[in-house]
Amino acid sequence: MSTYRDEDPRIHGIKTKIRVVPNFPKQGIMFQDITTLLLDPKAFKDTIDLFVERYKGKNISVVAGIEARGFIFGPPIALAIGAKFVPLRKPRKLPGEVISEEYILEYGRDCLEMHVGAVEPGERALVVDDLIATGGTLCAAMNLLERVGAEVIECACVIELPELKGRLLLSMWYIYGVMLKTGS
Amino acid sequence: MSTYRDEDPRIHGIKTKIRVVPNFPKQGIMFQDITTLLLDPKAFKDTIDLFVERYKGKNISVVAGIEARGFIFGPPIALAIGAKFVPLRKPRKLPGEVISEEYILEYGRDCLEMHVGAVEPGERALVVDDLIATGGTLCAAMNLLERVGAEVIECACVIELPELKGRLLLSMWYIYGVMLKTGS
Repeated sequence: MSTYRDEDPRIHGIKTKIRVVPNFPKQGIMFQDITTLLLDPKAFKDTIDLFVERYKGKNISVVAGIEARGFIFGPPIALAIGAKFVPLRKPRKLPGEVISEEYILEYGRDCLEMHVGAVEPGERALVVDDLIATGGTLCAAMNLLERVGAEVIECACVIELPELKGRLLLSMWYIYGVMLKTGS
Repeated sequence: MSTYRDEDPRIHGIKTKIRVVPNFPKQGIMFQDITTLLLDPKAFKDTIDLFVERYKGKNISVVAGIEARGFIFGPPIALAIGAKFVPLRKPRKLPGEVISEEYILEYGRDCLEMHVGAVEPGERALVVDDLIATGGTLCAAMNLLERVGAEVIECACVIELPELKGRLLLSMWYIYGVMLKTGS
């Protein structure tokens, strides 16, 4: 496992732009809001640059982004490293033939789908989302990619909620976070 | 009004990457699927470049992307022109205080929300989505931005369905499409 923690001087600027909204989407949840990060062009660019510096030249041909906030961070990374972008979507959103993975969420059940034919056996893939909580969503994403024969190189998340121990669920894979937060 | 149509040599390559899926999400709809465009790094980059070349140096400080496919095209444009990215989301997705706009969709009713404080009076804004159909969604997006005092410079869409006459609804605004398609 590998995390950036605080060793890069850009991390502090990124951290200060993330807003915590208490009791969203329900009582007791401290929601990590990345929309305030997106309002600062420099902090948003720094976030993307940190990922691009890590993944450039690693022969990654697939960046898979998880709906909906993974769609915001995944495409700029894909474009910068010359990889395809594959959206992993909620049920009944993708128009073509799909494969599906159900998973248990922090608050409920959900399902991710991927287009058949989007990823080929042997491709090297990166999974992108804004946040890792329990790791359930990332786990479903990685299962989708491995079912079609791709190799998942790493998961890239902006935020981690370490108290939810998502890393344990994903211990067979690598997680890379721009920062670690306690959610408080 | 202004459209790119076919004068740029990159347009043809982009066009060939868009897949039409018949009868999605319901019988009789010819769905324009941009996920196949995203699988081609060159065609995806060409698409973003066409927009960036048009909007760079135009003093645009806000790129507003419509959930969910506007999240794929909006952020790379925002990063390249140095603007903030503002996600316009479905109800109950944004954690902070929001303003809302209801609109009539090709198949049903829906609503878009924007965070209060994300955009300031006098800012110059670009609205991004993958496709213009009836124009109802774009109209709601532009209303949100104008309600907080921003000036909408243009709407940028990859695909237009001209038979749905979205341009008429939006005749007071500018639409810019990378291409025009008939949907057939």
